[in-house]
Amino acid sequence: MTRDSLDELLARTDAFIRDVVIPFETDPRMGGHGPSDALVEDLRARARSAGLIAPHLPPELGGQGLDHAATARLFRSAGYSPLGPLAMNLAAPDEGNMHLLARVATPAQIDRFLRPLAAGTTRSAFLMTEPADEDGAGSDPSMLRTVARPDGDHWIIDGRKSFATGAEGAAFSIVMARTGESATMFLVDMDSPGITVERLLDTIDGTMPGGHAVVRLDGVRVPATRILGEVDQGFRYAQVRLAPARLTHCMRWWGSARRAHDIARGYAVKRQAFGKPLIDHEGVGFMLADNLIDLKQSELMIDWCAGVLDSGAPGIIESSMTKVAVSEALWRIADRCVQVMGGTGVSGDTVVEQIFREIRAFRIYDGPTEVHKWSLAKAIGRAHPGDVP
Amino acid sequence: MTRDSLDELLARTDAFIRDVVIPFETDPRMGGHGPSDALVEDLRARARSAGLIAPHLPPELGGQGLDHAATARLFRSAGYSPLGPLAMNLAAPDEGNMHLLARVATPAQIDRFLRPLAAGTTRSAFLMTEPADEDGAGSDPSMLRTVARPDGDHWIIDGRKSFATGAEGAAFSIVMARTGESATMFLVDMDSPGITVERLLDTIDGTMPGGHAVVRLDGVRVPATRILGEVDQGFRYAQVRLAPARLTHCMRWWGSARRAHDIARGYAVKRQAFGKPLIDHEGVGFMLADNLIDLKQSELMIDWCAGVLDSGAPGIIESSMTKVAVSEALWRIADRCVQVMGGTGVSGDTVVEQIFREIRAFRIYDGPTEVHKWSLAKAIGRAHPGDVP
Amino acid sequence: MTRDSLDELLARTDAFIRDVVIPFETDPRMGGHGPSDALVEDLRARARSAGLIAPHLPPELGGQGLDHAATARLFRSAGYSPLGPLAMNLAAPDEGNMHLLARVATPAQIDRFLRPLAAGTTRSAFLMTEPADEDGAGSDPSMLRTVARPDGDHWIIDGRKSFATGAEGAAFSIVMARTGESATMFLVDMDSPGITVERLLDTIDGTMPGGHAVVRLDGVRVPATRILGEVDQGFRYAQVRLAPARLTHCMRWWGSARRAHDIARGYAVKRQAFGKPLIDHEGVGFMLADNLIDLKQSELMIDWCAGVLDSGAPGIIESSMTKVAVSEALWRIADRCVQVMGGTGVSGDTVVEQIFREIRAFRIYDGPTEVHKWSLAKAIGRAHPGDVP
Amino acid sequence: MTRDSLDELLARTDAFIRDVVIPFETDPRMGGHGPSDALVEDLRARARSAGLIAPHLPPELGGQGLDHAATARLFRSAGYSPLGPLAMNLAAPDEGNMHLLARVATPAQIDRFLRPLAAGTTRSAFLMTEPADEDGAGSDPSMLRTVARPDGDHWIIDGRKSFATGAEGAAFSIVMARTGESATMFLVDMDSPGITVERLLDTIDGTMPGGHAVVRLDGVRVPATRILGEVDQGFRYAQVRLAPARLTHCMRWWGSARRAHDIARGYAVKRQAFGKPLIDHEGVGFMLADNLIDLKQSELMIDWCAGVLDSGAPGIIESSMTKVAVSEALWRIADRCVQVMGGTGVSGDTVVEQIFREIRAFRIYDGPTEVHKWSLAKAIGRAHPGDVP
Repeated sequence: MTRDSLDELLARTDAFIRDVVIPFETDPRMGGHGPSDALVEDLRARARSAGLIAPHLPPELGGQGLDHAATARLFRSAGYSPLGPLAMNLAAPDEGNMHLLARVATPAQIDRFLRPLAAGTTRSAFLMTEPADEDGAGSDPSMLRTVARPDGDHWIIDGRKSFATGAEGAAFSIVMARTGESATMFLVDMDSPGITVERLLDTIDGTMPGGHAVVRLDGVRVPATRILGEVDQGFRYAQVRLAPARLTHCMRWWGSARRAHDIARGYAVKRQAFGKPLIDHEGVGFMLADNLIDLKQSELMIDWCAGVLDSGAPGIIESSMTKVAVSEALWRIADRCVQVMGGTGVSGDTVVEQIFREIRAFRIYDGPTEVHKWSLAKAIGRAHPGDVP
Repeated sequence: MTRDSLDELLARTDAFIRDVVIPFETDPRMGGHGPSDALVEDLRARARSAGLIAPHLPPELGGQGLDHAATARLFRSAGYSPLGPLAMNLAAPDEGNMHLLARVATPAQIDRFLRPLAAGTTRSAFLMTEPADEDGAGSDPSMLRTVARPDGDHWIIDGRKSFATGAEGAAFSIVMARTGESATMFLVDMDSPGITVERLLDTIDGTMPGGHAVVRLDGVRVPATRILGEVDQGFRYAQVRLAPARLTHCMRWWGSARRAHDIARGYAVKRQAFGKPLIDHEGVGFMLADNLIDLKQSELMIDWCAGVLDSGAPGIIESSMTKVAVSEALWRIADRCVQVMGGTGVSGDTVVEQIFREIRAFRIYDGPTEVHKWSLAKAIGRAHPGDVP
Repeated sequence: MTRDSLDELLARTDAFIRDVVIPFETDPRMGGHGPSDALVEDLRARARSAGLIAPHLPPELGGQGLDHAATARLFRSAGYSPLGPLAMNLAAPDEGNMHLLARVATPAQIDRFLRPLAAGTTRSAFLMTEPADEDGAGSDPSMLRTVARPDGDHWIIDGRKSFATGAEGAAFSIVMARTGESATMFLVDMDSPGITVERLLDTIDGTMPGGHAVVRLDGVRVPATRILGEVDQGFRYAQVRLAPARLTHCMRWWGSARRAHDIARGYAVKRQAFGKPLIDHEGVGFMLADNLIDLKQSELMIDWCAGVLDSGAPGIIESSMTKVAVSEALWRIADRCVQVMGGTGVSGDTVVEQIFREIRAFRIYDGPTEVHKWSLAKAIGRAHPGDVP
Repeated sequence: MTRDSLDELLARTDAFIRDVVIPFETDPRMGGHGPSDALVEDLRARARSAGLIAPHLPPELGGQGLDHAATARLFRSAGYSPLGPLAMNLAAPDEGNMHLLARVATPAQIDRFLRPLAAGTTRSAFLMTEPADEDGAGSDPSMLRTVARPDGDHWIIDGRKSFATGAEGAAFSIVMARTGESATMFLVDMDSPGITVERLLDTIDGTMPGGHAVVRLDGVRVPATRILGEVDQGFRYAQVRLAPARLTHCMRWWGSARRAHDIARGYAVKRQAFGKPLIDHEGVGFMLADNLIDLKQSELMIDWCAGVLDSGAPGIIESSMTKVAVSEALWRIADRCVQVMGGTGVSGDTVVEQIFREIRAFRIYDGPTEVHKWSLAKAIGRAHPGDVP
């Protein structure tokens, strides 16, 4: 894609978010467990008219084939509203699932699962995390307790998953299950017999359609043709999915943090206290200055990691570094915005309060900060000084 | 009160919170804008049976007359559940209103307003803060725009208030209004003609019955007998109310933070990751060690400030120092607890997520951290080194 | 000691530090490895005249027998100059050595070693830490490599010690050596054959006479009468020494941090920038407000831990909590003071720069912050929630 | 310069620093006020042989004409030893002075002052800051008290300067003096009558030859041909000098922080504690992981700001953002390295302790963090959201 056509795409995206998406933020169909599917469909219809459904995807899936560097710019623009990524069909978990399917799925799987997902007419889930109360796999994949066993040309899956984002209402899920000492991924229709959405979690965040569910799989029978990629390669595919997925999270939430900063700045410029505008109080102005620096550093980290991925490297260490740096920086920004705005900051009168809650969860989703630091420390311990970035 | 009888009171309080109150935390009558009045009444009935309604109040109001030091211990125990202070009728804003009325109200006002409040059969509000969007008084009282003007032996009040905690459902409010260059406080029945609860704010916290409201006063007519204390003394009374009210906030939320820490500790001891219990990972264990230190430091600051108030000093500087130190420390604790618990921490599966949201608001309620630091800096600038604590 | 006589002692101490000790801070005998012994003796002569040599010691050692609570107040006053504790003979490592000897030494050892030390006419060292480059015991006592083996009614000690504070110029050392699976402490004259001060370390701090040395022990022959306490009880005695020694460090350095704050405040009140005094810039005023809070919290932690020790409890957990909280808080204070004072802060024109360097080392001496958090985490993991403070 | 020749230059620089410069770090000619001129000359002789004197300068000054982006890479490599920039003649303040002279000086001034400086055979100073005790200009140029008044075809300068880095031993200084309402810069030989180096400051840092001096100018008579650029343009030239000078500080000290990290990493990998290498303790490993992230973010900020300057923009805001972000990040790194290494970290046994002290000063030199945040806040308050980066 040329630089000009990218600039044009970004300008259209900015306008679409500002003029079309943001007014929907106060739509009553925003519920406690995320926007309703009807609201999502409403948004997507508008994105379709605007030619803005998943423009980053490869041309064969209807997109314009952006590399990670261009995707970074697009997703940051889309994230300026928490509804933007949904409207443009580039939100988690669908976006990461599309990325994985495009790399690993068979032609038949692509037709059956990926195309409707890319078109934004279905939703999907990624069932990997397991419930803490059963000592299942949280951030430690070696603790995987969901099991798949072969049964003729089928497999039978038993287990229980948690934090299954968007499972309620999804057409299908990618299910990670133990197969012997390894793990395998399966494409499972959510209306398969034996699948039950046990309950929706009440989480601090609230912009993912379908929310986060606990899902039980009781003897779910799946044909072998629904294995995603090869048997026993689940952990490897998880890495294929995770490094870019972490990074797209950073991109989208960067946009939200920028939004919060702009709102807080506007508030601080207008609101008076103790005889002058808030922003002229160093206690406030310094917070906004810190935001500016954190925004820039986060942007640079995202672009750097995107460049690493575009070079063909797996980017495991780089995406861990970026996830930690960006999620913690965006969190500081969101917290400062709330503080700058005082009572208004902790109220739903602006979207800042919601962004604050979303970004709190981001410090945990896709691996808590501490898990990433743990693997970075391992890498540092192994490496020759020059081997880590 | 003897040390033994205080210890006995605390032991009964601990048992009451643990056995009676905590089970109500998952009661469906907990709503988005705080627990319903029916739920509060249910809890209070049980507190009454247990002899635990507002035990800190003076004997003439049915309590046992605790000083600030003993109150600190009682409120920390009560705060172990966010519902505890409500059950025991020592929650904001009623508790601070009772404190002020007991010092300033006339005998007739005491009978009419304070006694039912102390008995826990009515609720009240404190209408001081004004909406940001009208440049009203946020944390800066000099910006007060609500006005009272005399009209024979009555006063007419016009204005608009925001963050009026508990106004929805309150029997009466204490209203701060400008009278010339000064301010005066009025006791106003909430069913007075001209008072409208415009809307409830959707705030990040959610344990205050009645939530936080925007209230309009249009020509509200109040007899002169409803002036609280003397005309033009409103700012002085605000100080009488604010220093101890800040401190009781610290006490109650300390209990909540202790609760979150105990839950996170239990999780970290039980939950395994990467081959050992979470707590044996220094990344987690250090967070709990930091909590331990922050809890102790907060407790010591509260007790120190309570001692200052018990000595008869106004404690303005000391309560600002304590409010900043304790709210920020409890916030760090709550944030670490969420992080230790990963996905469970950002879900409603434990009360930790709610405590996290409550304490976020505490950094703003009763004066944001920055406003207190601003007045501390002023005091430091004025003072001889030995004059500030 | 009565409250009045304590207040009188503190007033005399404050005056002595201010009028007598502080002028010596710019004495040319302050060298890179600490003040010369001649300077120390000059200061002590003045303290003797003022009746202020080690007033906290028991009467039988010439003091007034202060408990830990009173000691806390005294040492904070003495620490207001980095030379104060030296002048008054209550500096590390002598002060901790006196504390241990008073509890464990035989009457003969008391006469031979403790009395001259208490009188301030000799100095001593505590040889426990071992060099990092030989994998000796840093903060982990189980790695002790210095060995003592019996030889008739003598013991032969071989090993190498590092960070031996004050060893150069000391009359004797307490040497920790492995004896089988345990460890034993020995009182060793520094002029014994086989003892060599290999070199002085160039450390960031610089107020301990004799500096910090690397000491080699080659077949040092010690009579059995020089065993301190009982054989194989070295680790236990180390605990007896360490908890109070950590706390007295906190007390003394608190005084230094208070000094730095007072100097920085004076600078901020007087110095103009951008049209007003520095302190009226929130960026500066907020730092001083944070100092005020950190000073108060540190003082409260010290007093709490002193109370625990006065109750007869060993205070291991409490002194770890206090060491972490206070050293980190004093560090923040020292760093802010430097920053408030700009170029003057990083110059030797005031004592702030030196205090900054001293307190940096304090975060490592007597157990780095991380080692204490590690043991706190262990305690939290073991304990019932109510068992840790 | 081609990419290949830049890579080759960097490889030669890395080898030169490692093999030639680092061994000089323990040279006895390193003194309290910086390395002696003899040591500097020794180093430069070697750099000359290696063809590594100021390779970034324009070809007409003997260099290879690097842009800011390439300079960033070169200076980071050079900074790996605190002596590296001195050896290669790209240290402050000479480097910034050369930059300014190359842009503003007359041909005669270039021959007389710049050429010997570029060749590394003289040193220079930049006399702008004034003593705090006289309310002179610290970071606030409007407080400039040094005055120049015309006297025929000469000017007479009177005033007093502080933090005059390298003034002792410099051949000449650039002196900033008030001329009416504006300021003018003069090139002044340091042996001019009326110039006195009053004293050297004892500062926490110690790698600048000549240290930091207080300089008095008593009726110093300077011909008009020694005006640098135009009369009354001093403040504008200060900006020309300051933005890139801030950035080159960031570059050089980045190298030092990288060095400290590599040393601390080596220590943590080798040193055992509590049964495993230090780095396998998360308390240590996480600190190194944080270093890795801070190093990368700092590098990215430097490269971003270099790109802005290479685009021809003045980069005032960008260099302020970068100075704050990088100095604070490098400081965290240095502090963590000290902490990781325990006692060794606060000793002179490695260069980490010195780097720690250097970088502490960097948070103040070239504008304290707070002054930069203050101007960033002003820019944010003025700007349309999209106008600041």
